[in-house]
Amino acid sequence: MSVIRLENPPSVVGYAAVVGRREHEGPLSADFDLHDSGEKFGMDTWEKAESEMQRLALNMALAKAGLRGGDLGAIFAGDLMNQCIGSSYAAECAHRPFFGLYGACSTFAEGNVLGSIIVSTGVFSRCAVLASSHFCTAERQFRYPLEYGCQRTPTSQRTATAAGAFILASEGEGPYVREVLPGTIVDMGITDINNMGAAMAPAAYDTLTKYFEETGKKPEDFDLIVTGDLGHEGHAIVLDFMKNAGYDMSGVYNDCGLMLYSAEEQDMHAGGSGCGCSAATVAGHIMKRFERKELSDVLYIATGALMSPASVQQGRSIPGIAHLVRISAERGI
Amino acid sequence: MSVIRLENPPSVVGYAAVVGRREHEGPLSADFDLHDSGEKFGMDTWEKAESEMQRLALNMALAKAGLRGGDLGAIFAGDLMNQCIGSSYAAECAHRPFFGLYGACSTFAEGNVLGSIIVSTGVFSRCAVLASSHFCTAERQFRYPLEYGCQRTPTSQRTATAAGAFILASEGEGPYVREVLPGTIVDMGITDINNMGAAMAPAAYDTLTKYFEETGKKPEDFDLIVTGDLGHEGHAIVLDFMKNAGYDMSGVYNDCGLMLYSAEEQDMHAGGSGCGCSAATVAGHIMKRFERKELSDVLYIATGALMSPASVQQGRSIPGIAHLVRISAERGI
Repeated sequence: MSVIRLENPPSVVGYAAVVGRREHEGPLSADFDLHDSGEKFGMDTWEKAESEMQRLALNMALAKAGLRGGDLGAIFAGDLMNQCIGSSYAAECAHRPFFGLYGACSTFAEGNVLGSIIVSTGVFSRCAVLASSHFCTAERQFRYPLEYGCQRTPTSQRTATAAGAFILASEGEGPYVREVLPGTIVDMGITDINNMGAAMAPAAYDTLTKYFEETGKKPEDFDLIVTGDLGHEGHAIVLDFMKNAGYDMSGVYNDCGLMLYSAEEQDMHAGGSGCGCSAATVAGHIMKRFERKELSDVLYIATGALMSPASVQQGRSIPGIAHLVRISAERGI
Repeated sequence: MSVIRLENPPSVVGYAAVVGRREHEGPLSADFDLHDSGEKFGMDTWEKAESEMQRLALNMALAKAGLRGGDLGAIFAGDLMNQCIGSSYAAECAHRPFFGLYGACSTFAEGNVLGSIIVSTGVFSRCAVLASSHFCTAERQFRYPLEYGCQRTPTSQRTATAAGAFILASEGEGPYVREVLPGTIVDMGITDINNMGAAMAPAAYDTLTKYFEETGKKPEDFDLIVTGDLGHEGHAIVLDFMKNAGYDMSGVYNDCGLMLYSAEEQDMHAGGSGCGCSAATVAGHIMKRFERKELSDVLYIATGALMSPASVQQGRSIPGIAHLVRISAERGI
């Protein structure tokens, strides 16, 4: 069995989302806690701004939970910047045990899988999970200088300027993390870095089919099945693959990369991406929908593309991974 | 309390270390499982060679444990390469749930902290922990092209070409991971990237003093206290700081960065570094010393410097972290 049913499901006692200008201009803007239209958050570099977003998200999530940094057993955090500096500089202010993660765009789910398991078993009574990305730090690290004004292909996704934070606790009123399914690396030999949705979709398919096969559940048992950031390409592939496997998800399936921006009013090509895309969509929009009782049982599957510019230059394919987190209004035990 | 006493201490049922030429020429060579004098391990790039080292270390550790990849509940792995590609490409062959970590040179201890906690609580009955570094991948990513022949300062350390693997299991004959102490980020404002030992030493001091204060133990209660890779500079600082705090570690304290190379015969300046340095020293040399019954109780504290070239260029200081893992011949429960 790969699905882990948590014996003492942790409650999401705090959550916050911080976003940049474009994300604030999108359809989910009312559900984010903070934005900065300059995208610098008072800092003098984009890299510092990304750390600051994570720090602000952590502190707002703590405040909502009525907690201080000292109440946390540990912080799980990651981002896309080389050596994950976004997270290190964000977390150092909290002075708590720190686990740095790298799961590319799957990081927020990876952190929630680890954090939930450990809180569920009682080793820590509370932990924080953080993830972020920033359009400007990602562009200059992975692609081209912004000033170059490079044209992007239709299948490319925009790295979201966004950060999300969860505070998981052994005691609380919910929503709860009831089940988790850590992802396995799936590499189908895709090498097009301008179509990462296609590279990550097989990993999402792998995780989702395992989940449904092992639990015997069906897509219609959930209010929402939401992938991290597959965008238009990956979303269509997952829907198609799942249908062929006998799981019709068409009525309940969405993708954070499609939800974050307006396809009509914002030209974001295939949609949003980056660790912050699903972190902010889940820690902002989806948690607010739980608050409004519009949702009661959600499967969140964040996908990551585990390549680097060096591996791409060396002609290697793009390994994908997808971690699943089930968030429910009920503890279900 | 920050020290986590594991209720069901996992046994290290398999371990293996793979190294490059210089590491094989050093004083610990008899305790490593495999080396390649060309440092390419049959691959056509250094980056692929680093992944291959991790894959070989995992497979040898599994073989020693009499297990196959399918027996693992999860793999925890990390390295220094941007986006941690060393670990993704190494782990994808195993087809098991994968948690990517970034803890710089503290990664092997970070993985063992997480893996031990989760195996101890019974969520997985077995997991693998992997970490690697490669002199050539690190030089061209963090410093200068090798061909440039850049002269190094006396306080600089050499990134080890090395990988280490542990297989942790809920059942076994030991040695056991009895206690762990996840590290907190400590940033003393040090900015000299050619003296990372000094940047990381305060984190090791922070973790060690917490451990001794909380447990009431003394340095002389252990056969060996070994830090990850502080090198000459960091080792001297930790010894000095600890003495001032009332803990005389002079009789039992060593550092993997000092142990890996011969100070007399190999000119490695301040010593070794990199995730692979302590991973291979612990998974090779120290575990072999447990086998030979030369050791029975060891504190392993791996330190990491959580900066990046971008953070250094932006004038930021170097945050340090140190995760502690206590390895004992006895379960002690």
